[in-house]
Amino acid sequence: MKTIAIKLSQLKIPLLMAIAFCISINASAQLTEAQRYEESKKTEVWKPVPPKVEAMPNQPPSDAIILFDGNGIDSWEAIDGSDAPWDHSPYAMTVRAGSGDIVSKQSFCDVQMHIEWRTTREDDKTGQNKGNSGIFLQSRYEIQVLDTYQNSTYPNGQAASIYKQFIPLVDASRPAEEWQTYDIIYTAPRFTGSELTSPARLTLLHNGVLVHNNVELKGQTEWIGEPKYYAHECLPIKLQDHGSANSFRNIWIREI
Amino acid sequence: MKTIAIKLSQLKIPLLMAIAFCISINASAQLTEAQRYEESKKTEVWKPVPPKVEAMPNQPPSDAIILFDGNGIDSWEAIDGSDAPWDHSPYAMTVRAGSGDIVSKQSFCDVQMHIEWRTTREDDKTGQNKGNSGIFLQSRYEIQVLDTYQNSTYPNGQAASIYKQFIPLVDASRPAEEWQTYDIIYTAPRFTGSELTSPARLTLLHNGVLVHNNVELKGQTEWIGEPKYYAHECLPIKLQDHGSANSFRNIWIREI
Amino acid sequence: MKTIAIKLSQLKIPLLMAIAFCISINASAQLTEAQRYEESKKTEVWKPVPPKVEAMPNQPPSDAIILFDGNGIDSWEAIDGSDAPWDHSPYAMTVRAGSGDIVSKQSFCDVQMHIEWRTTREDDKTGQNKGNSGIFLQSRYEIQVLDTYQNSTYPNGQAASIYKQFIPLVDASRPAEEWQTYDIIYTAPRFTGSELTSPARLTLLHNGVLVHNNVELKGQTEWIGEPKYYAHECLPIKLQDHGSANSFRNIWIREI
Amino acid sequence: MKTIAIKLSQLKIPLLMAIAFCISINASAQLTEAQRYEESKKTEVWKPVPPKVEAMPNQPPSDAIILFDGNGIDSWEAIDGSDAPWDHSPYAMTVRAGSGDIVSKQSFCDVQMHIEWRTTREDDKTGQNKGNSGIFLQSRYEIQVLDTYQNSTYPNGQAASIYKQFIPLVDASRPAEEWQTYDIIYTAPRFTGSELTSPARLTLLHNGVLVHNNVELKGQTEWIGEPKYYAHECLPIKLQDHGSANSFRNIWIREI
Repeated sequence: MKTIAIKLSQLKIPLLMAIAFCISINASAQLTEAQRYEESKKTEVWKPVPPKVEAMPNQPPSDAIILFDGNGIDSWEAIDGSDAPWDHSPYAMTVRAGSGDIVSKQSFCDVQMHIEWRTTREDDKTGQNKGNSGIFLQSRYEIQVLDTYQNSTYPNGQAASIYKQFIPLVDASRPAEEWQTYDIIYTAPRFTGSELTSPARLTLLHNGVLVHNNVELKGQTEWIGEPKYYAHECLPIKLQDHGSANSFRNIWIREI
Repeated sequence: MKTIAIKLSQLKIPLLMAIAFCISINASAQLTEAQRYEESKKTEVWKPVPPKVEAMPNQPPSDAIILFDGNGIDSWEAIDGSDAPWDHSPYAMTVRAGSGDIVSKQSFCDVQMHIEWRTTREDDKTGQNKGNSGIFLQSRYEIQVLDTYQNSTYPNGQAASIYKQFIPLVDASRPAEEWQTYDIIYTAPRFTGSELTSPARLTLLHNGVLVHNNVELKGQTEWIGEPKYYAHECLPIKLQDHGSANSFRNIWIREI
Repeated sequence: MKTIAIKLSQLKIPLLMAIAFCISINASAQLTEAQRYEESKKTEVWKPVPPKVEAMPNQPPSDAIILFDGNGIDSWEAIDGSDAPWDHSPYAMTVRAGSGDIVSKQSFCDVQMHIEWRTTREDDKTGQNKGNSGIFLQSRYEIQVLDTYQNSTYPNGQAASIYKQFIPLVDASRPAEEWQTYDIIYTAPRFTGSELTSPARLTLLHNGVLVHNNVELKGQTEWIGEPKYYAHECLPIKLQDHGSANSFRNIWIREI
Repeated sequence: MKTIAIKLSQLKIPLLMAIAFCISINASAQLTEAQRYEESKKTEVWKPVPPKVEAMPNQPPSDAIILFDGNGIDSWEAIDGSDAPWDHSPYAMTVRAGSGDIVSKQSFCDVQMHIEWRTTREDDKTGQNKGNSGIFLQSRYEIQVLDTYQNSTYPNGQAASIYKQFIPLVDASRPAEEWQTYDIIYTAPRFTGSELTSPARLTLLHNGVLVHNNVELKGQTEWIGEPKYYAHECLPIKLQDHGSANSFRNIWIREI
């Protein structure tokens, strides 16, 4: 496969590398086409065959676990295990302010997750009070949900921040009443006994824009004090009731 | 990682951790609400304020560089610097088979890139000959484009493979004539002189499905032999003419 | 109209028709293929050639007049000709309650029009007070905008009604805070002097669902009393401030 | 109809109308607000309540009959009643050239119908041979399917024409390999015995653009000779095999 598709003349190639390159060209030149084809087969890898997933436009991938698609909220429950107390319609599930957080019935570790959220219009509120909610991976690591379109707060607490740990690379917020998307790639932390052996890692696209690129989380989300890790196993997704009637939809998750 | 469905109440929290937790509760309990609020402010970070990006539905982010949106192919050129020889309409730019690869006029290093591609229908071809093309980051590191819907080939050469380096986690291919998407998060390799100090890293979503999660590339894409790194600077995106009249559209890129 | 499932073979073709059909078959059979092809050319019509319109996915047709696409509200003005007093962002233009109706600067007669609207959440209101606004074709003929998802009112005044003239065929309403679409095909009334010679006609799709099929309007929209026609020329589109902070977006119009 | 840009204030209201208007104002002015409200209730119509339809984004309306959504082609059959001989995948159903037309198992009269179609790339063909197929309402009235992007033919036979009866108002064609949409509003002809009492009527949006506005069909589609009506009952939708491997998807229909 030809790969000198750039302006080689502009590259400053160190001498030794150039020599190595010429030798390689010569070596290749001495092979016939048939020999080269035989040579190329040596780097083909035929196993494993990756599993087939249908990924239709405007649909969750066929191997995704659906957490909300408009057909009820049976995949969720209250913290105490009773029925999820939020409102829902075919279009969305919506925080019933004061009813409490909800958690997925199923627990998860490493995942790709898609979720859409919308803050309700709260013209009379500001800062952290305006359209606040949150998505907690493994019930512990929060990606902030907040109406931060023309609403000032501390950047490590704005929408798409990893709350009090990482400021998003850019502010891709949309206004209240607009649907927004998070595409999450999450690697759970590893523990040996109570000891952390590998921290959690997170990549996040907010409305399709990269805001975190494989960052290493510092520990469990804390409002006060520094984050620390506490050993745990796979755990549910938690969605926060922070007093705003925010909505969620199109929630699906793939174990990776 | 295996998922074990457990409830919060069932967690076996190690003893030391539980004690630490209780102490922390006690400490907090001794603070008034006002004191706690003061305490919480210590972990607010007010700088930097991330730059504002408008991310409208069905539009590139406002800070993206547009490489193709239907308005001509002036952002591209032939390898020799002459005009890009491919076909184009408001809907797509299409390989003119035999005309050669094209490269972006602009060079890039670390990027988020979105590109849509479509293989043409070639019922008479199989394996690597069916709807073949490729997207080369920095003109050197290839993400494979191929019609691999019900078309068998070596998995490290199928669509969404990092050619001859990484098999995709799953096969999210759509059939010929369907538009497909790549969302790419790419960190360029770092060199000190001719020495590699940090390999290239790549995360890839194929049709919205995670197929590579921050993998470390092994070097420049090779058809024959093992990949190696050769020091280089920022370089153009290259799109391959491999003899199939494949199409591309909605190409945008953000420097990150 | 009731649908009766039948197969072609089960059709009772009236005798005369069957005979006519057989004669026609015979006549055709007597022609050679070449003669038939010559015959077929007699019903080809080569003029006029319809004008080319590019109709890209997620974009207004290329011949549309854009009334709102996020780039300001300069296409609109207050009734008295001063600047349009509504709020706007790249995402929407929004009624500033109490500021008054707005009208397009341009006047229109026969049109195809696309408009998207969203009612704000008003949990404390009911009936005609909940998310009320309206779209007046030629400033006179109102298509109702109202939050009628699980909100009862008189059907000839619900969302997608032609206010106090026609009940929509079905209720395709979405809840508050969801974007909804109207696709309007409108034929203006014709007058000779002050006399009506042809009434206005309207076809309406609400969220893609047919709710009016070429109905003949009864006159100018009236809150009290029966509608009547008053002769007029081409006139602006009017959007109503009825006290709810509803939003509009993606407004385009084609003269037909 | 020509559009003349005027402001409301510039309207020349005929004298009689102005007087009538003033009288009406006076009459209203003599009523209290409460009396006016009472008066307004006289034109409220409370029955019938239109049936509720959920019309979610990117989904068929909840009252639609699904004719193809990727889950097999059991809703279709060959003309002779045997299994539909076309190809299908989760993405599309595709003409198997030479296998013959297919018809819906169910018969229909008045309908709203949505269908998406794609012509395959046939660079070696021109005119009526390039990407030809057709959609026959009631198996008799054809809306043409053809690749007429930069492909000349007689306009009453181009894509979106009512074949050999009506030229589309504009040419909204997309190129081969692009999905295109038809939104059809169809009123079946009425017959008393063998006599036509009301012709078929059709409104058509092609890729969202109005191309026919409630036109009256002239009879059954004919390749040779003038169209005539032959009495019939409700009949299936027919999709044509005209030798091109065109595809269809997202087919749904609502009886109206």
